[in-house]
Amino acid sequence: MNFSSDNWAGAAPQIINALADEAGRYGGAYGSSDTDARVEKRFCEIFDRDVAMFLVGTGTAANGLALAAVSRPGGVVLCHTDSHMEVDECGAIALQADGARLRLIAGDNGKMQPENLRAAIDAFPVGQVHAGQLTAVSLTQVSEAGTVYTIDHIRALSDIAHEHGLAVHMDGARFANALVHLGATPAEMTWKAGIDLLSFGGTKNGCISAEALVMFNPDLATQLPYLRMRAGHLFSKSRFLSAQFDAYLADGLWLGLAANANAMADRLRVGLEASNRARLAWPTPANEVFAIFTTEQARQLRAAGAAFYEWNFSGKDTLGLLDGEDVFRLVASFATSADDIDRFLDIVAE
Amino acid sequence: MNFSSDNWAGAAPQIINALADEAGRYGGAYGSSDTDARVEKRFCEIFDRDVAMFLVGTGTAANGLALAAVSRPGGVVLCHTDSHMEVDECGAIALQADGARLRLIAGDNGKMQPENLRAAIDAFPVGQVHAGQLTAVSLTQVSEAGTVYTIDHIRALSDIAHEHGLAVHMDGARFANALVHLGATPAEMTWKAGIDLLSFGGTKNGCISAEALVMFNPDLATQLPYLRMRAGHLFSKSRFLSAQFDAYLADGLWLGLAANANAMADRLRVGLEASNRARLAWPTPANEVFAIFTTEQARQLRAAGAAFYEWNFSGKDTLGLLDGEDVFRLVASFATSADDIDRFLDIVAE
Amino acid sequence: MNFSSDNWAGAAPQIINALADEAGRYGGAYGSSDTDARVEKRFCEIFDRDVAMFLVGTGTAANGLALAAVSRPGGVVLCHTDSHMEVDECGAIALQADGARLRLIAGDNGKMQPENLRAAIDAFPVGQVHAGQLTAVSLTQVSEAGTVYTIDHIRALSDIAHEHGLAVHMDGARFANALVHLGATPAEMTWKAGIDLLSFGGTKNGCISAEALVMFNPDLATQLPYLRMRAGHLFSKSRFLSAQFDAYLADGLWLGLAANANAMADRLRVGLEASNRARLAWPTPANEVFAIFTTEQARQLRAAGAAFYEWNFSGKDTLGLLDGEDVFRLVASFATSADDIDRFLDIVAE
Amino acid sequence: MNFSSDNWAGAAPQIINALADEAGRYGGAYGSSDTDARVEKRFCEIFDRDVAMFLVGTGTAANGLALAAVSRPGGVVLCHTDSHMEVDECGAIALQADGARLRLIAGDNGKMQPENLRAAIDAFPVGQVHAGQLTAVSLTQVSEAGTVYTIDHIRALSDIAHEHGLAVHMDGARFANALVHLGATPAEMTWKAGIDLLSFGGTKNGCISAEALVMFNPDLATQLPYLRMRAGHLFSKSRFLSAQFDAYLADGLWLGLAANANAMADRLRVGLEASNRARLAWPTPANEVFAIFTTEQARQLRAAGAAFYEWNFSGKDTLGLLDGEDVFRLVASFATSADDIDRFLDIVAE
Repeated sequence: MNFSSDNWAGAAPQIINALADEAGRYGGAYGSSDTDARVEKRFCEIFDRDVAMFLVGTGTAANGLALAAVSRPGGVVLCHTDSHMEVDECGAIALQADGARLRLIAGDNGKMQPENLRAAIDAFPVGQVHAGQLTAVSLTQVSEAGTVYTIDHIRALSDIAHEHGLAVHMDGARFANALVHLGATPAEMTWKAGIDLLSFGGTKNGCISAEALVMFNPDLATQLPYLRMRAGHLFSKSRFLSAQFDAYLADGLWLGLAANANAMADRLRVGLEASNRARLAWPTPANEVFAIFTTEQARQLRAAGAAFYEWNFSGKDTLGLLDGEDVFRLVASFATSADDIDRFLDIVAE
Repeated sequence: MNFSSDNWAGAAPQIINALADEAGRYGGAYGSSDTDARVEKRFCEIFDRDVAMFLVGTGTAANGLALAAVSRPGGVVLCHTDSHMEVDECGAIALQADGARLRLIAGDNGKMQPENLRAAIDAFPVGQVHAGQLTAVSLTQVSEAGTVYTIDHIRALSDIAHEHGLAVHMDGARFANALVHLGATPAEMTWKAGIDLLSFGGTKNGCISAEALVMFNPDLATQLPYLRMRAGHLFSKSRFLSAQFDAYLADGLWLGLAANANAMADRLRVGLEASNRARLAWPTPANEVFAIFTTEQARQLRAAGAAFYEWNFSGKDTLGLLDGEDVFRLVASFATSADDIDRFLDIVAE
Repeated sequence: MNFSSDNWAGAAPQIINALADEAGRYGGAYGSSDTDARVEKRFCEIFDRDVAMFLVGTGTAANGLALAAVSRPGGVVLCHTDSHMEVDECGAIALQADGARLRLIAGDNGKMQPENLRAAIDAFPVGQVHAGQLTAVSLTQVSEAGTVYTIDHIRALSDIAHEHGLAVHMDGARFANALVHLGATPAEMTWKAGIDLLSFGGTKNGCISAEALVMFNPDLATQLPYLRMRAGHLFSKSRFLSAQFDAYLADGLWLGLAANANAMADRLRVGLEASNRARLAWPTPANEVFAIFTTEQARQLRAAGAAFYEWNFSGKDTLGLLDGEDVFRLVASFATSADDIDRFLDIVAE
Repeated sequence: MNFSSDNWAGAAPQIINALADEAGRYGGAYGSSDTDARVEKRFCEIFDRDVAMFLVGTGTAANGLALAAVSRPGGVVLCHTDSHMEVDECGAIALQADGARLRLIAGDNGKMQPENLRAAIDAFPVGQVHAGQLTAVSLTQVSEAGTVYTIDHIRALSDIAHEHGLAVHMDGARFANALVHLGATPAEMTWKAGIDLLSFGGTKNGCISAEALVMFNPDLATQLPYLRMRAGHLFSKSRFLSAQFDAYLADGLWLGLAANANAMADRLRVGLEASNRARLAWPTPANEVFAIFTTEQARQLRAAGAAFYEWNFSGKDTLGLLDGEDVFRLVASFATSADDIDRFLDIVAE
C-alpha cells in the first residue's frame, strides 16, 4: 500500500531485461550506438513526425534544458504557481537557462487559464528592457494537481503564446498517464496542439531513469548538444538510457503501464467516494488521488501500513477544510495492484 | 577487439543483477531508501572514515559539483592543460561553480609538477581583486595521459595547495585502475595524501552509470544537496544508482574488474614492445596504452576489426613523431579478454 | 513641470564642483585614492558604526551585489510583488547571485506585512532540497508605491527574517527621501532596525551616478570585492564616484535636497486634493505622488507641458477606477521648484 | 611624475564642462535624452557607417557584454595569454556570457600570431560537443604589452576567425592611442579590418567614466539592451555618460589627448635609451613604456617621487633579465607634461 509517489515503485521487468541485454555487448559511447539510433527513430514514429530527441537522467534536467534552448538574456518563463519547476526544482531553470526567471500564474486545479496567461504577457511589453523578455510558457501534463489539460485547453494556451512569439513547453513527467486518460495520440497532445518542447518522462512509469527532451522544431535544437554536455547530462553509456526507452516504447508497454496506474487510481477514487469516510479534494482523472482525511485518520492509515504524503499547494485555504482535516496525495503506479487498493479501502472503511 | 574506451564496454553481470533485485520492490525516492543508506555506509568503510557522499549520473556532474562546493566569486581552479574538465566537459565547471575559470598548468605525461603549481599560484596574490581568487587544485588519477600519480606526488601537490588555503580535488574516473596499480588503500590515495574532494567513478569500470562525489571534509558538503538538486542530478530513483555501487563495492568486485583491465593493458604493452612493429608513446601503468602507429598501420588494424582512437594532447609535437606516424589510444576494460589482446597482437605482427 | 522621475533631473552644482576639483589631480585607481578613503570614513560616521561600503554605478548593481553577498545555491529572496528588482531589473539578481530566485509577497501599498512574510517562509522548510533555500528578505524604502515603512514595521520584518537566519536587505534608491520623512537617523532606519545590507542611492537625489552598497555586518563583505570586480562595477576612476558622495554627504546637502523633493511633492498633493479635479490613488509621504486622472485629463496636462508616467502595479484593479481613469505617478526631485508645482496645479485647475 | 597608469590621471576640463552643462537641465532617463541621441549619431560619423552603440561604466563591462552578445552554450573565446579579460577582470566574461571560457594563445609582445590562432581553432572541431564551441576571437589594441597591431595583422586574424564563423572583438581601452600611432581612421582600424565588436574606451584618455560597446553588425545587437540592463550597466542618468563622449569626440579632442600621451611616452623612451642607465624591455609605440631597472634603481626613482608599477606577464623569463633587474611599466596620459618626463629623466641620469 505504498502510494507515496510513482517514483517509489521499482521498475518493470521488461526494462531490466533490456538493460541486461545491452550489458552483454560493446556499443558506441555518448549516444553513438545502434540502440541510441533505434530509439531516436522510435520517437519519430511515436510522434508521427521528425523530432530532435535528447536523453537525460532526470525530469529536472529535461525541463531546464528545454527552457535553456529558448533562453534569451533577461528571459522569463510563464508557468503555474504550483509548477514543479518553481516549487520542486531548486532553481534548475535559472541554472541551465542563463538566469531565466519564472513568472507565476495562478489558476484553479493546477491549470493556467487563457485570460490569466494574456494578463501575464501584458506585463512584458516588447522592447521594455527593464521588465526583461518573455521566452516561453510551460504547462505540466498531468498537472501538479493531478488534473489533465484537454487538448483544446492546450491549444488555447499555445495559440496565445505563439501570437507573442513564445515557445510552449510541456512538462510531461506523467505524459503517458495523461495520454491514456485523453485517449489521444502523442502527436495530438503535443505538436498538433502547439507544443514546441516536451519533457517526456519514463522514470515514473516503470523505468529506472529515462527522460527525454523532445523538440518538435529542429531549429530550437541546435544548442542542445552543448547545453546537455555542460550540464553533465550526456551519459557516456547513453545506450543504457536508450535501452530503457527501447523496451518502454515497444509493443505499447508504456501505455499499458500507465493504464494500470490510472485504473488503480480510479478504483481508489471510486472506493473512497463510496466509503463515506473521506472526500476527494478535487476531481483527478489520471494516476493521482487527492483526498481529504483528518490527521487522525491519516495517522491510523499509516499505522496500518499505508504510505502517502500530505500535500501543499497554492489555494489550499479555499478548499474549506474543517478543523483537523488536511489534503493528502495518493499515487498509483505501474506496480500498484487491485489488492493494494482494496486493502487500503478496507482500512479506510474500518 | 574494441579498445575505443572503457565506456564502450557493457556492464558487469553483478551490476545488472543488483538492478533487477532493486526493481522488484518499493523504496524511498531521492536517496531515502535502505539501499541508499547502505551504500553511504559502505563508502565510509571503503575510505576508512566518515565521508559525505553524493551520487550523480556522470563524471562531469561530479567534477562540476565538487568544484562548486568550494566556489567563490571570481574563482579559479588550477589543473593540467589536458585535464578532462578543460578539454572534454564543455564548460561544465563554469556552469555549476558560478562561472569559475580553469587556469591550466603544463606538465609532461599528463601530470602537474610542484614547481609549476607554485608558479601558477603566485599569479594570484591574495586580495588582488583583478586576478580573481584561487579556490582549488584538481588532478586526474589515472591522468588523461594514462599515467598514475604516486602517493608522494599527490601529497606534494596537496601540501602546496593547502599552504594557500586551496581545496584539492581528484577526478577519479578511473580511480580503481590507479588504486590497483599502486596497491594502495582508498584512504592512502585520497584523504591521507591530502585529497579533499573526489569524483569516484564506477561507470568506466563495469557499471551502467554510477558516479559519486565523495567529500572528506563534511564542512564542504553543506551546499551539495542544493547544488546537486538544481543541477538535475538528484535522481528520483536514486536507489538504482546505489544498487550499482552496492554490488560494485561488494566482495572486491570493483578491484577485480580493474585488475583485469590493467592486466589486459599490460599484456598489450608487452606484446606491442615485443612486436617491433610499434612503439609506445610513453609508459603507462594502468588500463590505457598510447601507441605510435603509422596511419597506414592504423588503417589496416581497423580494417581487421580493431577499434581505437587517434589521440590529441598538448606536447604532441615533442614526441619526435616521424612523418606518417600518429599517437593512438587503446583502452582495456573489465570486459577485455586475453583473446582480444592476442588477436590484436597477431594482426599487428602480420 | 517634469515629473517623469527623479532621474530625469540633472545634478546639484555641489556635485559637479566636486568632480571638477577631483579632475585636476592624480589619484589612486580602483578605490585607492584619498578621496575614496575619506568617503569610506564618512559612511561610518553617517551610520554611526563601522560599515563596509562598496561604490557601484547603478542601483541595480547595488541590489544584485547585495544579494550575491548572501547567495547560496538554489537561493531564494523574498520581496514584494512590485519590487524594483522583480519588475524593473531584467533578472539582475539571478545574474549576480548565482541564479537566485525571487519569491514574491503581495501586500497593499507596496509593503510586505509580517504575516505574509511568515507564510512565505513556511513554504521553504529547512533542508527540503527541492524547494531551494531562503537567503534574504528585501524591502524597498521608499517603496515602489511611494510609501514609507515605519521603523517598527522594518523591525517586525527583520525580526522574522533573523529568526530564520535570513539577511535583510533594503533597496534605498530613495533612502534620503524616506529618512527625511521619518525624521530618523540613518542608523535608526537601518541596522538598529535590523537591516544587514543597504543599497544607498545618491543618483536620484542630485548625483550623476553614485550608488553604494553598505554592509553593516563586515562578515558578509568578504566576497564583495570579487563580486563587484567581475560585475564590471569596480570603476578605475572610482574616486569620481567618491567625490560625488563626498559632496553629497557634506554639510547635510543630501538631506536638504531630499527635503526639497518631499516638500514639493507635498505641495503637489495638497494642491491636487484641494483642486477637486483629481484624487490621490493612495497616500504617499515622500517625493512621489500617485494621482488618478482621466486619460483625457492626462492628455491635456501633457499637452500643456507636464511630463509624467502612467503607473502599473499589482492590485491596480482593487482601486475602483472609473471608466477612462488611470493612475499616474508624479515625482518631485531636488530640482523641482514651487513654481513647477504651482504652474502644474494651475493647469489642473483649468 | 605619476606614471602608474593612465587611469590615475584626472579628467580633461572639456569633459567636466560638458557634465556641468548637462547638470543644469532635465533629460530623458535610460538613454532617451537628446544628448544620448546626439552621441549615437556621432559614433556613426566617427566610424563612417551605421553602428549600434551601448554606453557602460567600465571597460570590463564592455568586454563582458561584447562577448555575451555572441555567446552560445559551452562557448569559448580565444585571446592572448596576457589579455586583460583573462588576467585582470576576475571572471567577468564568464559572468556576462553564460559561463563562456577563455582559451589562451601565447605570442610575443602581447600579440597573437595567425599560425597560433589557427592551431587553437583546430582544437575545437565543429560539432565535437565535449570541447565546447568557439564563439569569438578577442584582441587588445593597444595590447597589454604596449604594442600595437598593424591593420594587416588585424585583418589576418579576423580573416581566419571569419573563415570559422567566429566574431572578432577588439578590446580598445587605449583605442585612441593606437589610432594616433597608426595614423589610421577608426573605420580602417576596426570594421574595415574585420572587427565586429569594439570596446571603445574613453576613461583612460581623459574622461571620468565613459566606455562604449560598438557593434558593427547590428544583427549582433538585438540582445544587448537586455544584457546591459541585467548587468546593471544601463545608467538611469545615461546622458552624463553621453555628455562625456559628446565633448570627447568633438573637435578632435580625443585624438589630441592621445597624441599628447603618445608623444610624452616617446620622449620618455628616447630619453631612457639615451641615458645608458636603463634599457627598454621591448619596443612600444603608444603611451606605455616598459623599462628594465634594477630594483635598487626603482627604489631610488620612487623615493624621488616617481610612481610606476612592476609588470608581470607571460614570457618574462625569456627577457634575459640580470640578477636584481625587473620590468617596470611607465604610462603617459593626456595629463602628462614634458616637464614630468624631463624631471624623471634627470633623476634617472643621476
